[in-house]
Amino acid sequence: MSRTMSGGSEDFNGNISRTGSHRQTDHHGYKVRFPPAKGLFTELAEGVKETFFANDPLREYKDQPRSKKLWLSLAHLFPVLDWARSYTFGMFKGDFVAGLTIASLCIPQDIGYAKLAFLPAHVGLYSSFVPPLVYAAMGTSRDIAIGPAAVLSLLLGTLLQEEINPATNPHEYSRLAFTATFFAGITQAMLGFFRLGFIIEFLSHAAIVGFMAGAAITIGLQQLKGFLGIAKFTKKSDIISVMESVWGNVHHGCNWQTILIGASFLAFLLTTKYIAKKNKKLFWVSAIAPLISLIVSTFCVFITRADKQGVAIVKDIKEGINPPSFHLIYWSGPYLAKGFRIGVVAGMVGLTEAIAIGRTFAAMKDYQIDGNKEMLALGTMNIVGSMTSCYVGTGSMSRSAVNYMAGCKTAISNVVMAIVVMLTLLLVTPLFKYTPNAILASIIIMIVVSLVDYETAYLIWKVDKMDFMALLGAFFGVVFASVEHGLLIAVAISLGKILLQVTRPRTALLGNLPRTTIYTNVEQYPEASKVPGVMIVRVDSAIYFTNSNYVKERILRWLRDEEEQQQEQKLSKTEFLIVELSPVTDIDTSGIHALEELLKALEKRKIQLILANPGPAVIQKLRSAKFTDLIGDDKIFLSVDDAVKKFAPKSALNV
Amino acid sequence: MSRTMSGGSEDFNGNISRTGSHRQTDHHGYKVRFPPAKGLFTELAEGVKETFFANDPLREYKDQPRSKKLWLSLAHLFPVLDWARSYTFGMFKGDFVAGLTIASLCIPQDIGYAKLAFLPAHVGLYSSFVPPLVYAAMGTSRDIAIGPAAVLSLLLGTLLQEEINPATNPHEYSRLAFTATFFAGITQAMLGFFRLGFIIEFLSHAAIVGFMAGAAITIGLQQLKGFLGIAKFTKKSDIISVMESVWGNVHHGCNWQTILIGASFLAFLLTTKYIAKKNKKLFWVSAIAPLISLIVSTFCVFITRADKQGVAIVKDIKEGINPPSFHLIYWSGPYLAKGFRIGVVAGMVGLTEAIAIGRTFAAMKDYQIDGNKEMLALGTMNIVGSMTSCYVGTGSMSRSAVNYMAGCKTAISNVVMAIVVMLTLLLVTPLFKYTPNAILASIIIMIVVSLVDYETAYLIWKVDKMDFMALLGAFFGVVFASVEHGLLIAVAISLGKILLQVTRPRTALLGNLPRTTIYTNVEQYPEASKVPGVMIVRVDSAIYFTNSNYVKERILRWLRDEEEQQQEQKLSKTEFLIVELSPVTDIDTSGIHALEELLKALEKRKIQLILANPGPAVIQKLRSAKFTDLIGDDKIFLSVDDAVKKFAPKSALNV
Repeated sequence: MSRTMSGGSEDFNGNISRTGSHRQTDHHGYKVRFPPAKGLFTELAEGVKETFFANDPLREYKDQPRSKKLWLSLAHLFPVLDWARSYTFGMFKGDFVAGLTIASLCIPQDIGYAKLAFLPAHVGLYSSFVPPLVYAAMGTSRDIAIGPAAVLSLLLGTLLQEEINPATNPHEYSRLAFTATFFAGITQAMLGFFRLGFIIEFLSHAAIVGFMAGAAITIGLQQLKGFLGIAKFTKKSDIISVMESVWGNVHHGCNWQTILIGASFLAFLLTTKYIAKKNKKLFWVSAIAPLISLIVSTFCVFITRADKQGVAIVKDIKEGINPPSFHLIYWSGPYLAKGFRIGVVAGMVGLTEAIAIGRTFAAMKDYQIDGNKEMLALGTMNIVGSMTSCYVGTGSMSRSAVNYMAGCKTAISNVVMAIVVMLTLLLVTPLFKYTPNAILASIIIMIVVSLVDYETAYLIWKVDKMDFMALLGAFFGVVFASVEHGLLIAVAISLGKILLQVTRPRTALLGNLPRTTIYTNVEQYPEASKVPGVMIVRVDSAIYFTNSNYVKERILRWLRDEEEQQQEQKLSKTEFLIVELSPVTDIDTSGIHALEELLKALEKRKIQLILANPGPAVIQKLRSAKFTDLIGDDKIFLSVDDAVKKFAPKSALNV
Repeated sequence: MSRTMSGGSEDFNGNISRTGSHRQTDHHGYKVRFPPAKGLFTELAEGVKETFFANDPLREYKDQPRSKKLWLSLAHLFPVLDWARSYTFGMFKGDFVAGLTIASLCIPQDIGYAKLAFLPAHVGLYSSFVPPLVYAAMGTSRDIAIGPAAVLSLLLGTLLQEEINPATNPHEYSRLAFTATFFAGITQAMLGFFRLGFIIEFLSHAAIVGFMAGAAITIGLQQLKGFLGIAKFTKKSDIISVMESVWGNVHHGCNWQTILIGASFLAFLLTTKYIAKKNKKLFWVSAIAPLISLIVSTFCVFITRADKQGVAIVKDIKEGINPPSFHLIYWSGPYLAKGFRIGVVAGMVGLTEAIAIGRTFAAMKDYQIDGNKEMLALGTMNIVGSMTSCYVGTGSMSRSAVNYMAGCKTAISNVVMAIVVMLTLLLVTPLFKYTPNAILASIIIMIVVSLVDYETAYLIWKVDKMDFMALLGAFFGVVFASVEHGLLIAVAISLGKILLQVTRPRTALLGNLPRTTIYTNVEQYPEASKVPGVMIVRVDSAIYFTNSNYVKERILRWLRDEEEQQQEQKLSKTEFLIVELSPVTDIDTSGIHALEELLKALEKRKIQLILANPGPAVIQKLRSAKFTDLIGDDKIFLSVDDAVKKFAPKSALNV
């Protein structure tokens, strides 16, 4: 390891003497530096720290007395302790209005989503009472609205009904739902506790957009049952089964009263949505429209007793707040394993949704949400929920957006909402018995329409065609097969993309930009000129076992192409191969092995291998593996320019 | 998109006028170039080409008449047609000697490995007759020796005996073995046909070394049964069960004649191995030692009838060459699925081993093996093998090394070996009935010893501690659980490593090397100085959905750390954040979204975001997503140096 820092001034003088040359900033005397060797534990500890504690959570604990540390730990678990101290009446005003607004939106949604999950309507309302309270104490997002969500309800319903028929065994079905909710909570809390939050990042954005759009269309189609008043409806969720079912029933005649109610209120709801879109300040019109529709339609049905003329109504709804359900969870037997499996899937999907929502609004208001704390909060809320007759809750996109626009300041808006839902459960629930299913269908259709994010889809199409294929895959998977399959496809595509990305890294041929020391991709900069007799290749990725062979063979292919061109154009033969390593962040034993093989292949061709600008991890590993001895220290340069200056024929340089 | 190429000469003149300044190569007038936009199909086609046809196989078909194309296609499938034309007698001499040597080594190995897979001894010999002939016609490696291999036999035995007990149902067991062999072949051929060879690159080198060492020790321990003459031996392969089994039997007494034979021949074999290691020219001593031991010991047992005194012998061996076994493969029933599953696993492992061996020797002699052709060859050979009473074959490391050292020139040495094995099957097989199991155990122990590649393990330890952990994981998985679990651990570790690598990319803080235009990692080059008021960060990976959030938050953390330091040392505040993008090979919508969020966060802090040197894919996607408009074209520079020159306070630059 030779440091030539002390030789700097001589070099400087040496350079000065060549003033007028365009290369005076070269031969500056710097050599590639080996970073200080790190021990096993330092290396492991750093790896663990970057992986699991990327946000440096212990920072504030440093140099604090014990009582302060205890308080910090408590505040770490219950962020409310931290922010509640600076809570003001002004903030409460915002939270109060927002809370009332999302409560008005959540009541009809909860009933509809519970039906989507084949659960009794009151279970939906229960899920908007306890979980938001738990979240308010533990969560770090200020804008998320907690409760049942459309896609998650659909997914849960699909998975649960594969195990138990909700029509014939409603009690066992509910028990399995609570079991799944419990394990969804455990999954989320464990991921948070063990700081494994990065797992959810493996779901690509494009796959999520496709999955969501597919789920929205599936949910919308499912609503045709309530909307058209069809009694016998398919259990499957794919578009073909649903359309067959609808077509078959249309021939047998639908209930015209149901369609009338559904269609008129859907028209009303879409109008309010349109108004809200045109004038952002009128967002509250579309926010309270569902509740108004619910009340008006329920009242109409109650007065006219339209249910006796075949208008399907909610019927199955109980008064009173959440009863305990700890004893209903399957703690043994075959349903334990099934509940666990469904819970893990639902937990992960819920997490992905909640974190995405949290991040979106945090970015809008520029505050940080802590992924691991969020997971712990969501997990605890679902565990507590599973013991108080709630089913899996998460952040709801539609309600969170309304919450944000209504001016919420903190999670207190969720508390306000929970109290309103509690009062509803205690006082007015029995009236919802007469709510026509058609109105719920209209409300859900109005809401899921916005889950089809065609703007993002168009952006993805423009930016990355491969990503768009992933989006379509997940979308068609959900629409033509099932939510489950769509989710599987989304995960498979995401993982596949990661794996492809690491096996086929990009490489580029570099050329010199005339009159500079800059070497760039000749494909991007056609004015960059190749240096005669020297081929410069940049490898744009870490060299690992997954790509080491590819990289080696790709470089040899560049060389072969180059040689053919040289023969055709009778140019001078390549004598030096410079591999620019600055983008190569790391290398492993397979990578070093590939370099050794490259060196051998080059020696047979009488071409010298030169490395430029290896990073700290790379140069250290090359030295450990004695590759630096093999190639020679004098073949390793700090920059491509240095190497070219040293080896290129003088005549070739356009000085 | 502004190209300022035409403005080059003015800039050049402009630069000239500043002669004497150290920064004269700057303000050179080059701007970041947008590459020509590619259509969907160009992009897809290029992606497909790099992924599946990385070695450009259609190159030689270009501009050829039809008959030539047909010939090329045939030669593509049967490379023998290509190289046989230049085959000389001199090459045959080398192949003949090498073929005889590996034949002498393969006969005892085949019998031993067949026992390891719980198959009759003659099935092992069959597998060294047909498959090598098929491989010779289709393979591209010149040094590999084809036939049964130790680890694959162990794996197959472990997987098969979980389904059928070989002691009580030997016929069904063989049938399942042929079924698995058939599907192993299909798996390999399909991977080759669909050019999915890169799948096997997902197994990391370290995990393979660990797995192999673990399997070698497991195989060695299994040999204690034959070596000590233990009648009742555990079915499990983990070290604890085996040691308990050995310990229990030692108390009940072993067969001293067996131990005497085993120990004396093991001593002889290890001596020859030692001689061969000391003097590379005497490699043939250790190569023919096993056959000599086999013949001598068999003769001894035959003369003394030691088998009547309890020395276990091979017994179960048939005369004659391979009978057809097409009708024995399970084409329906539950064993079809089981055979398929086992076949897929065995096929993948066999492939990994054969390709690794092929590559090793190809690198030594500097020729290329074609991964996809190899897969097709190995697959066809196993498919044909399954129909001619062979079990899964692959390349054998020990025999390939001997083949190489004995001076083989082409795959003809495999043909010579196959003929010798055929003659053995026809003429002398019945004599092997008296071969003591102890001698097979000794031979296998001698061979597997070299599978424990402690030198590579030490190298891995030195180069990368994390890789070494992967090695240990696979090793202990095999030794303490089972081959299957070890393999699973190896795969899981390899995939986990890939996934970690993409979620937590490295980032570096850059500083200027005094008197140069080079900006390097301040951690690696302590002499690199930060530019006051400017923070320069390099992201060392493509920015994808897997790491976009991490990258954004990591940059903000660098900034926070920097601000704290500035407050402590009362330095000027950071006003510009330059993100060096040259290692960022690609970006997706999530990545762009993260940049947008970064931009917002920086705006709140009154810091300007500047991008330096975005690559072609990145700049194009940034433009498609209109991020370039958001940040402003004047904030995107060709190099960090350009950006610093533009924005840094003049006083701060040490001109």
